Amino acid sequence: MKFGGTSVGNIDRIKNVAKIVKKSVDQGNSVVVAVSAMAGVTNELQKKAENISKNFNPEDCDLLLSSGEQVSTALLSGALNEIKIKAKTLMCWQIPIVTEGKHTNSRIISVNTDIIKKFLNQNFVVVIPGFQGINEQLRINTLGRGGSDASAVALAKCLNAVRCEIFTDVDGIFTTNPDVNSKAKKIDKISYDEMLEMSSLGAKVMQTSSVQSAMLNNIEVYVKSSFKNTDGTAIINQNKISYDKVITGVAFTKDDAKITLQGVKDKPGVASSIFKPLYENNIVVDMIVQNISADKLKTDITFTVKRSDFERTNSIMKSLIKNLDYEKIISNDKVSKVSVIGAGMITYPGVAYKMFDSLYKENINILAITTSEIKISVLIDEINVENAVNKLHSVFDLD
Amino acid sequence: MKFGGTSVGNIDRIKNVAKIVKKSVDQGNSVVVAVSAMAGVTNELQKKAENISKNFNPEDCDLLLSSGEQVSTALLSGALNEIKIKAKTLMCWQIPIVTEGKHTNSRIISVNTDIIKKFLNQNFVVVIPGFQGINEQLRINTLGRGGSDASAVALAKCLNAVRCEIFTDVDGIFTTNPDVNSKAKKIDKISYDEMLEMSSLGAKVMQTSSVQSAMLNNIEVYVKSSFKNTDGTAIINQNKISYDKVITGVAFTKDDAKITLQGVKDKPGVASSIFKPLYENNIVVDMIVQNISADKLKTDITFTVKRSDFERTNSIMKSLIKNLDYEKIISNDKVSKVSVIGAGMITYPGVAYKMFDSLYKENINILAITTSEIKISVLIDEINVENAVNKLHSVFDLD
Repeated sequence: MKFGGTSVGNIDRIKNVAKIVKKSVDQGNSVVVAVSAMAGVTNELQKKAENISKNFNPEDCDLLLSSGEQVSTALLSGALNEIKIKAKTLMCWQIPIVTEGKHTNSRIISVNTDIIKKFLNQNFVVVIPGFQGINEQLRINTLGRGGSDASAVALAKCLNAVRCEIFTDVDGIFTTNPDVNSKAKKIDKISYDEMLEMSSLGAKVMQTSSVQSAMLNNIEVYVKSSFKNTDGTAIINQNKISYDKVITGVAFTKDDAKITLQGVKDKPGVASSIFKPLYENNIVVDMIVQNISADKLKTDITFTVKRSDFERTNSIMKSLIKNLDYEKIISNDKVSKVSVIGAGMITYPGVAYKMFDSLYKENINILAITTSEIKISVLIDEINVENAVNKLHSVFDLD
Repeated sequence: MKFGGTSVGNIDRIKNVAKIVKKSVDQGNSVVVAVSAMAGVTNELQKKAENISKNFNPEDCDLLLSSGEQVSTALLSGALNEIKIKAKTLMCWQIPIVTEGKHTNSRIISVNTDIIKKFLNQNFVVVIPGFQGINEQLRINTLGRGGSDASAVALAKCLNAVRCEIFTDVDGIFTTNPDVNSKAKKIDKISYDEMLEMSSLGAKVMQTSSVQSAMLNNIEVYVKSSFKNTDGTAIINQNKISYDKVITGVAFTKDDAKITLQGVKDKPGVASSIFKPLYENNIVVDMIVQNISADKLKTDITFTVKRSDFERTNSIMKSLIKNLDYEKIISNDKVSKVSVIGAGMITYPGVAYKMFDSLYKENINILAITTSEIKISVLIDEINVENAVNKLHSVFDLD
């Protein structure tokens, strides 16, 4: 069971989490709990670090931030003991949870389950701080934002857990963001692939890499609310789901920027010379579309980056013009990506047509398209996002 | 170097501490720093625990509270690295600092200095959280209030440090509490014995057991302000001090209560049957005075306890009357102890007379007296404390 920051956001909520854990114990489960820091704590600590240095050193930062989960771990264990559920805390160095060495954004390599199992066998609930591990030099590493999900999935994997329950402040995974579309519905079951597309495309309920790890290790994940006693969403293997709908959900991002290089000389090595400097500057490129130009010796290349990287990308592209020989740069930092996702589309033709047609009827211009086996993404002007999401949600029978 | 909670109470103060450490490093010193939690943090955490349970379990409490020093350790290390002083944090489990196993009020058994020395040899300042260690089961123990002093002294001892500097929010040890007597002066040098009497008698600058440990291991301790660049007070061996004054300081407590059992049958085992139930109820008895009664078969016994234990003590004594056969109980919970302390008094006769005579001239009644080689304590009505302190401070040339 993993509880996120809002789920342990204050003392009453921690007491509530203890009751949720008790219920599972009373049902006969052996429970390991991973907890996040109380909501707001990590940001507060980070602010303190920033006030000391704009380049606060990553090693000290990891030690600093990891204290947040230590506090919630101790409080939850105390709350469990208070209601007569035997609980034992285990810090990452007591287990150990071993990480790969990199500070502030590390990954878990291994979890030694000996001591965890020892306490489970003695009928303890084991409470473990999420988001952290120790590397081979015995230094604390943190796992980046959302890292408690990674801790939960790694623990579930190494302990051969029956299931991994991710408790959060929403009821589960929704067909689209309920803030944008009030007709959004909770999804009962979603496949790993679909969830991967949903989470990487902007449904921020669960860390993408943790979904990936759950998929690779075939761990059944249940995302549910710590505030309501409802079933949540099961993230499971595709073959355990019977699809009655073509599309499972509609996802969108709102922080994209688009850059088009027009009239690029169409010869080998061109794409490489565009994207190499972006890679070197650590700028992540998302969609890439290359069209045939009217002039057959030239081509247009369009790509998107995060809006926060827009200015840097633009100036890098402008500096390229001497060597690259393109005609014109067109950029737009007010674009968004809208995607329909569903394993069902593999067997149903016409999803793309239906999508484009619906958008056309709403007079929404499509700036670029990318597809995978289970999703179709279109780039549109940001101003049209809500309209597009609502239309697609309705057209694909998700309302 | 040990920095207390107020010394690291906010970001600016932590930056200031980094500068103090830098200065010492620039003077060529190898420095190990022990830090307390930022002022207020431990109380805040304790309040959280109390809100979860009035009997929050001690093991979880230790994990909870120890996070406070982890935060200040990380922040100070970050602040040092920011000003180009190479710093490395070492948590108690990385060293390890081994404690005796008891939760919330443990003691340090040993410090493995290997890794500390390794980093010192690489010219790192080593920053260590005070107040904590791990026991043989690898569980975190805390050392009780003031426990960071214990950490500092233990580190100084195990590292064979040249000196141990205790940085705090006052200028050093004073001849008496400056809040009560504006003529109080900073003491330049004080012996371990004197400091022990001063600190156990109410001058709360440094934890008593840490003074004791410094004495046993002959560690020179310097108590000084982290806010001013002044010399502070050296706590050193008596033979390194030349005494020009008979009395070094005047200490007092304000939280005592007195109980007198009148007409107790004077036979063997009486004292034991009075103090056994107090011991069993974990009530600490301070002064004990037994007088011969007018009736030679009977005696009067007076003793003092902390005011917070007064009610419990009273009812225990009342329950004893059936078995113990005493005539009358007289109790007073508004009494205080005032002491004059000075290694110099060993060679100067007449200190007691001078003390009692001064109090008599101020019309202050003495309720009980106890003495040691280097101090004389009197119990008086609390209302007279300030008057007594000021008078004695002046009479013994401390103004």
